[in-house]
Amino acid sequence: MRVYKKAILPLGFTASAVSCGIKKSGKLDLALFYSGAPLKASCRFTNSSLPAAPIKINKGLLELNNNFRAVLVNSGNANAFTGLAGILDARGISKTVASYLGISEKNILSNSTGIIGRRLPVEKIKKAIPELAAGLSSNGINKAKKAILTTDTFTKEITVRFSVGKSTVTICGIAKGAGMIAPNMATMLCFIFTDADITKRALDKALSASVSKSFNSITVDGCMSTNDSVMLLANGASNNPLIDTGTNFGVFNQALENVCLELAKMIVRDAEGATKFIRITVKNAKSFLEARIAALSIANSNLFKTAVYGQNPNFGRIVASIGSTGIKVKEDKLKIKVSNLKKKDIFVEVGLGRGKHLATVYTSDLTPEYIKINAGYN
Amino acid sequence: MRVYKKAILPLGFTASAVSCGIKKSGKLDLALFYSGAPLKASCRFTNSSLPAAPIKINKGLLELNNNFRAVLVNSGNANAFTGLAGILDARGISKTVASYLGISEKNILSNSTGIIGRRLPVEKIKKAIPELAAGLSSNGINKAKKAILTTDTFTKEITVRFSVGKSTVTICGIAKGAGMIAPNMATMLCFIFTDADITKRALDKALSASVSKSFNSITVDGCMSTNDSVMLLANGASNNPLIDTGTNFGVFNQALENVCLELAKMIVRDAEGATKFIRITVKNAKSFLEARIAALSIANSNLFKTAVYGQNPNFGRIVASIGSTGIKVKEDKLKIKVSNLKKKDIFVEVGLGRGKHLATVYTSDLTPEYIKINAGYN
Repeated sequence: MRVYKKAILPLGFTASAVSCGIKKSGKLDLALFYSGAPLKASCRFTNSSLPAAPIKINKGLLELNNNFRAVLVNSGNANAFTGLAGILDARGISKTVASYLGISEKNILSNSTGIIGRRLPVEKIKKAIPELAAGLSSNGINKAKKAILTTDTFTKEITVRFSVGKSTVTICGIAKGAGMIAPNMATMLCFIFTDADITKRALDKALSASVSKSFNSITVDGCMSTNDSVMLLANGASNNPLIDTGTNFGVFNQALENVCLELAKMIVRDAEGATKFIRITVKNAKSFLEARIAALSIANSNLFKTAVYGQNPNFGRIVASIGSTGIKVKEDKLKIKVSNLKKKDIFVEVGLGRGKHLATVYTSDLTPEYIKINAGYN
Repeated sequence: MRVYKKAILPLGFTASAVSCGIKKSGKLDLALFYSGAPLKASCRFTNSSLPAAPIKINKGLLELNNNFRAVLVNSGNANAFTGLAGILDARGISKTVASYLGISEKNILSNSTGIIGRRLPVEKIKKAIPELAAGLSSNGINKAKKAILTTDTFTKEITVRFSVGKSTVTICGIAKGAGMIAPNMATMLCFIFTDADITKRALDKALSASVSKSFNSITVDGCMSTNDSVMLLANGASNNPLIDTGTNFGVFNQALENVCLELAKMIVRDAEGATKFIRITVKNAKSFLEARIAALSIANSNLFKTAVYGQNPNFGRIVASIGSTGIKVKEDKLKIKVSNLKKKDIFVEVGLGRGKHLATVYTSDLTPEYIKINAGYN
């Protein structure tokens, strides 16, 4: 498996991005991804009971069919808590995109990220569609990966290539994150493109496994958003021997896990105001779930996160976090190891002394800069 | 009911405090409360599965008997995560106190708050006991209420008086809080003294009801501690007609609720680094529990708390918090009202449109000062 630290679109994909005026800064804020061949899609969405309009639409489309051609993304406005009007806004935009691409509205997945509770500037967006559609190219990914960002300070991108039979398969992922990241995927968008020929059930199985160990194992501030989505899109253009859950699955699954984990780590590294990257591994738990609950409890503790920011090895806060989960740890079996807090990359290892399972989560420190960014965001 | 904004010990209680050297600052760090008549005690402790040594001891004592005479408290060291040694340390200190007071070790409740994971300086503490015991007086409360504090910036104290039959009953409460406050009672100590003559079951019933609406309805940073305790101690010295769960209960319960709620609010007002006092009421929920879950989800959202600090009415963060609870709210039924964020006292009112129940929680904003305090605490 070869790994490239930049986005390289797989065969058959093109992308484009423009600045349509949602962001007052004039930065790129509208991206389009397109495949000549039909796309199978596997998606994971926020667990929020108040999901944004595009999430509602996408869920409906995924029940209707699994035959997509394009993905539209805007940043700067979440189209969340906008009710029926928000749904009609998004559908109107999709219709315009569909007519320019000569496809059906049903073949387009929509995404939004940004401020909650404001209507999309529909006319501005529609006006930008001709230029957006005309700009589609394989190099367009270099603008598109920027157009999905909000408070991110760098793009998140990775590409891996590997062989299946005599064919080379590519998986390319881009993401946006920054603040508001929590397990079950706070405001995070991730788009993963592959030219693999793969069954829908293999796509689903691989994405579930990968998301659990990556996007659902990171947390910045424990806050869940209305818009999180991970989309894995496969167009089969590499003509590889078909991948199914039993055939050629391992290599695809491994590659996808790598893509998801690296993107998830980049999101944590770019957490709002973060000065530290923290890996927390909880071992000797009774189950993976128990280990992850303990690890997330530490990762979401403001007191622990500020202690790391202050380079202050206050391990009592780790004890308090574990105790607060209610997991019946024996005090004399509990083992805690914390690396040198002066470094940028920190690790915490906890042994619960209860079993054989482990889980790793990633998080950042809590800093005055996080507050500065979030006190002003609007 | 008369309310006094200071601690006035009820009949039969005395208190004392000294600086024994646990706190390097030389501030008061050891307090003793004593009653000539036996005390009935009702206690609520942290839910932490790794409770501090004194909590383990107190739980054991409460199972053995309900006949106390004294309460010892040290600040600056939590005696938590100190294993069997920590238990022996605390018992050794209790024995010394018992011998000076001429009572049994079993009649003393112990409490500690401060740094986790360090042994108590037992000899220093024992050396201070003679002076501590000698200093017991009803005015001693004015030193004792300071000796229980850690990072608090002011004392928390209140006294209420009311009639039961021809007798005047007094309830006096003092507390320590500051950071690390969460429902189920993070690092918080609260001692409530009353001269009421009351049955144990009435004491328990009143404390449960009051704690639920006060200390378990406040949150500063969602972190739970190893040492939280609320102790309600009744010596019967006012000779009132006996209070039981059915007789004279209402007036006592009302007064206790008032004491607990006022102390809980003071803890939030003194939250580390706080610049705002936030009341969040969630209405029209299917149950009290549902309302409280929604209210706490908002109260524990770092994004919401920083928005309040920034005086930035980002109501999308309230929507996101409610959505993250999984409560099946209908978007068009959800009502959100936020008061002027420029003031020091803020309120948020949320209507879920699902039922008739409501809950109120209290919290503070998240500020750079919180991080500064907690980055350095050790």
